[in-house]
Amino acid sequence: MTAAQAAPLVQPGAALATAEELAGRIAGLQAGLAARGLDAALLLQNADLFYYAGTVQQSYLYVPAEGEATLFVRKVAERARLESALAAIVDLPSAGELPGLIAERYGALPGRVGLELDVLPVTRFRRLEELLPGTCFEDVGRDVVRQRAVKSAWEVERIRAAAAVADDVSRVVPELLEEGLTEVEFAGRVEAEARRRGHEGYIRMRGFNQEMFYGQLLIGPSGCVPSYLDTPLAGTGLSPSIAQGASFRRIGRGEPVVFDFVPVRDGYLADFTRMYSVGPLSAELLHAYDAALRVQDAAITAARPGAACRAVWDAARQAAADAGLAGNFMGHGAGQVPYVGHGIGIELDELPVLNGSDLELEPGMVFALEPKFVLPGAGAIGVENTWVVTGDGAQRLTLADEAIGIVG
Amino acid sequence: MTAAQAAPLVQPGAALATAEELAGRIAGLQAGLAARGLDAALLLQNADLFYYAGTVQQSYLYVPAEGEATLFVRKVAERARLESALAAIVDLPSAGELPGLIAERYGALPGRVGLELDVLPVTRFRRLEELLPGTCFEDVGRDVVRQRAVKSAWEVERIRAAAAVADDVSRVVPELLEEGLTEVEFAGRVEAEARRRGHEGYIRMRGFNQEMFYGQLLIGPSGCVPSYLDTPLAGTGLSPSIAQGASFRRIGRGEPVVFDFVPVRDGYLADFTRMYSVGPLSAELLHAYDAALRVQDAAITAARPGAACRAVWDAARQAAADAGLAGNFMGHGAGQVPYVGHGIGIELDELPVLNGSDLELEPGMVFALEPKFVLPGAGAIGVENTWVVTGDGAQRLTLADEAIGIVG
Repeated sequence: MTAAQAAPLVQPGAALATAEELAGRIAGLQAGLAARGLDAALLLQNADLFYYAGTVQQSYLYVPAEGEATLFVRKVAERARLESALAAIVDLPSAGELPGLIAERYGALPGRVGLELDVLPVTRFRRLEELLPGTCFEDVGRDVVRQRAVKSAWEVERIRAAAAVADDVSRVVPELLEEGLTEVEFAGRVEAEARRRGHEGYIRMRGFNQEMFYGQLLIGPSGCVPSYLDTPLAGTGLSPSIAQGASFRRIGRGEPVVFDFVPVRDGYLADFTRMYSVGPLSAELLHAYDAALRVQDAAITAARPGAACRAVWDAARQAAADAGLAGNFMGHGAGQVPYVGHGIGIELDELPVLNGSDLELEPGMVFALEPKFVLPGAGAIGVENTWVVTGDGAQRLTLADEAIGIVG
Repeated sequence: MTAAQAAPLVQPGAALATAEELAGRIAGLQAGLAARGLDAALLLQNADLFYYAGTVQQSYLYVPAEGEATLFVRKVAERARLESALAAIVDLPSAGELPGLIAERYGALPGRVGLELDVLPVTRFRRLEELLPGTCFEDVGRDVVRQRAVKSAWEVERIRAAAAVADDVSRVVPELLEEGLTEVEFAGRVEAEARRRGHEGYIRMRGFNQEMFYGQLLIGPSGCVPSYLDTPLAGTGLSPSIAQGASFRRIGRGEPVVFDFVPVRDGYLADFTRMYSVGPLSAELLHAYDAALRVQDAAITAARPGAACRAVWDAARQAAADAGLAGNFMGHGAGQVPYVGHGIGIELDELPVLNGSDLELEPGMVFALEPKFVLPGAGAIGVENTWVVTGDGAQRLTLADEAIGIVG
């Protein structure tokens, strides 16, 4: 084996979080731990490991309320050392050695420890209780989610890079769209273009039972089919098993093509929707699309730093009602969902949720705003962009043209 | 809206589990509940809902130890009624109404209830404790997993159909493989072919933090890169975030192309690996491939009904050692994993695990057997097929030719 033959453990050119970036994130978590009187947090979940440590190698990240964090790595420590900018990375031969290694590095075992109880399965939690029998555990999942809602400038650049993948793919969609293709064949063509541009494939979601594959490519009446997810659109899917997304239905003329697409680059997501069709769309659909753009304007005008999510949601609903489409907004009938957007970053279901909540927008928050209308029988139509809140208001990160792409 | 314009809620032609099929599964669960003295099970997780109810619509499946099961559906009940062959499907307007509805249908609230504690997050579990304050909860996740390890004839047909997608895609791989393509562009081409053939995309895994996207398409030295998953091969991936799978590395001549691919059809998975290359492979690699085929033969000879998993694992290890490749078997160095196969069905990480365990093989168990060798510097090579245990021994479900596909 020569050096030239070995594959790198880290993809050259990948954007690695710097030591400063990680230090800032850990300091933010520590401030919360200290305020709650917790001695430490012990983090296990992939998205949180990636956020605080820059790696998803099988690890326990121990963050004391004060002092240096340590990443205890089960598998693969050599790789974690290259991926993570943390200074303290320790081999963990087996989970059973964790208490001893913590005591050794920190002088004692912690009394009160925060865990990600929002994602940790019960049996996994109970094994930690057995491992650290004197410890009292509390939930820090909510704190982590709240902290992660506000992105650093470095993170916003990552989301911008993800957004650029979606923008690029959206520009070739007209070349891939053809009457008579099945939805899923069309989806495969689009997905291949995304992969070529570096789409990482797997989409992380925090919620129990939440599942997503690239987003939702729904055409004509498929856009009207609701499902198990809390999303305005879902689709039939290929079977009741993955009961969402593209189906075997063939694309017809004059049908709205909803290209709702989640790009993933360097672990960060964006979310966006553009509309296409083979041949012209009906006046009813064009009216609804115009309404979606007006809802977007109204919501973004309201999305100022310091505004409550409720203000954005109210502005959006009012604009939908003004267009005479309140009953079609964000779904139809029992399929309507009570929000117009969601936070996005390392996971697809982050804060802020643009619903009736009191949470206030802050500079650095990133959200996808997705005003959509479901017109029974005709299909769904709408627009979606990813935005970052700045001191001045919301700035758009997904830049592709919003005009409907009419083919043929 | 005319009937012709509406999209179906269920993909026409999808394989729906019959009422008899679901009744058999529920009866199996009930026997276990009765034996443990549990009054009922309350199931929430998608894979388990799909198994026992035939739908993943947002639901609570209540299975009393005796009598009829009820699916309480939060979203979308209309769809659940079409997807599921269960007779008792009840609208659940909010989770808070669950205890009242259970008491109404069953006369009383249960005292001891089984939950999927292996997958249920702690906060979700605590909400159930609040909802049913007099109830004692125990884990039935392990029982569910054990039951699901033995497939019905109907399920074996579903897995056979999934396997056929992998077989079909494997036959077009030689047309898609080109020197100089990046691994990820090649992956996108293959994935598009899979989608066209009805690959459902999302791959379910039960383990905490387990993630998979189509499988692993690894070329040359990329096959030697281990990562966070408990898999023999992993790859660099496109970044430390999704630290597995295809990278931006370009495909070279004489490199082993590992096409490890997980097809999904009608909610069932298969798992298989075939080898390709641009130009001939070295004698060292060909020797290792031959060894993989011999390991497969030895393991399958051992995989008789009544044999312990350990017997299969021992036979496989012995055959690898006989080929002089013990140190390269199922990974190399710290990357070696202690198993040669895993159960597969609705989730990728099912029982039986072909490791040192005492679990005995039974007719109806389906497993992927994946003898692989990692040759540092050169790459990984191996074979994988999905098999069903019959009264007579193991029968292969993935049928594509095992010869290495040499291109150019």
